[in-house]
Amino acid sequence: MEYGSETLANLIRQFARMPGIGLKTAQRLALYLLRSKSEDVDRLGALVLELKAKVRFCQTCGSITEEVKCAICTDSTRNQKLICVVEQPQDVLVLEKTGQYRGLYHVLHGVLSPIDGVGPEDINLSRLEERVRNNEVEEVIIATNPSVEGDTTALYIAKALESGGCTVTRLARGLPVGGSLEFADEVTLARAIERRERL
Amino acid sequence: MEYGSETLANLIRQFARMPGIGLKTAQRLALYLLRSKSEDVDRLGALVLELKAKVRFCQTCGSITEEVKCAICTDSTRNQKLICVVEQPQDVLVLEKTGQYRGLYHVLHGVLSPIDGVGPEDINLSRLEERVRNNEVEEVIIATNPSVEGDTTALYIAKALESGGCTVTRLARGLPVGGSLEFADEVTLARAIERRERL
Repeated sequence: MEYGSETLANLIRQFARMPGIGLKTAQRLALYLLRSKSEDVDRLGALVLELKAKVRFCQTCGSITEEVKCAICTDSTRNQKLICVVEQPQDVLVLEKTGQYRGLYHVLHGVLSPIDGVGPEDINLSRLEERVRNNEVEEVIIATNPSVEGDTTALYIAKALESGGCTVTRLARGLPVGGSLEFADEVTLARAIERRERL
Repeated sequence: MEYGSETLANLIRQFARMPGIGLKTAQRLALYLLRSKSEDVDRLGALVLELKAKVRFCQTCGSITEEVKCAICTDSTRNQKLICVVEQPQDVLVLEKTGQYRGLYHVLHGVLSPIDGVGPEDINLSRLEERVRNNEVEEVIIATNPSVEGDTTALYIAKALESGGCTVTRLARGLPVGGSLEFADEVTLARAIERRERL
């Protein structure tokens, strides 16, 4: 009865389980809902309940969809010979926002991480090899994060696809546009020197 | 179809309406739920739907409860002649944690704020005057926040209860325990000098 209501206390606990939400924030969110209009709160509750029932992952690429195949996989105007490999569904959104990419995607839903016990079977990898093999894919762009795990995964994928005859590339690393030399870390800067581009 | 699913997009929008939750955080929370176990997500949805139906405010003091009267108002071992006035329901929780207070509470659900158009009729004030009048209350401790609005509200309440014959007090202002002079603001420090206590 800490909060005067078991329902409220449970809701606060449930909110606090979400990433980046501490007990104070969870309390603030729950009390905000308590002050909100019933219809808004009911809408939120209904959407949460709908989520797992309606939203699924594309059978082909692993992106978010409400159908069997996602809107990108079924878009015949996109280049079917080009696949961009990302770690998470939200990475697809970020890449789509650039408007620069017109190929397909493949979402791994994770990265290789021996420390956390994540091996090749734990991520959406075998489906990628299958797609490359069956669709005469010409290029696989690996867009995992520029981290140790992301790099390890990229190397692993490149090795696995070696025999498939397609080109495997990785997003360029260098200075972020709009950044300044002063605040660049040494690894990034060293790499930017090494991979300098001809003007 | 920005997120590949209308349900997901709506949930993200609904999360982003909550205080302190931006679009990126809302996206992170929704995608976390998508990866979570169905039973956990369903539990959250059910709790949100239950919230407005089950939780209400105590008829007497305005605290959170699932009954007509809250656990504190119905506790006869508490001092019925002492009322502590706070701005929000969560302030009751904070004061209860001190274990120092054994009287009753009164939750205003707001503060007087002419700038935001909040007047005496918009907060739970008339019920307080009624309680003081009908229950021979001896002391009203005003624990609104030490802010301009909190102070204004405190003065207004003191004035309104003037004729009732009860003592009206305000929480002490001074240096926070564990703080250091170096980081105290001038207003707090000036006040701490002015109200210095004899050892």
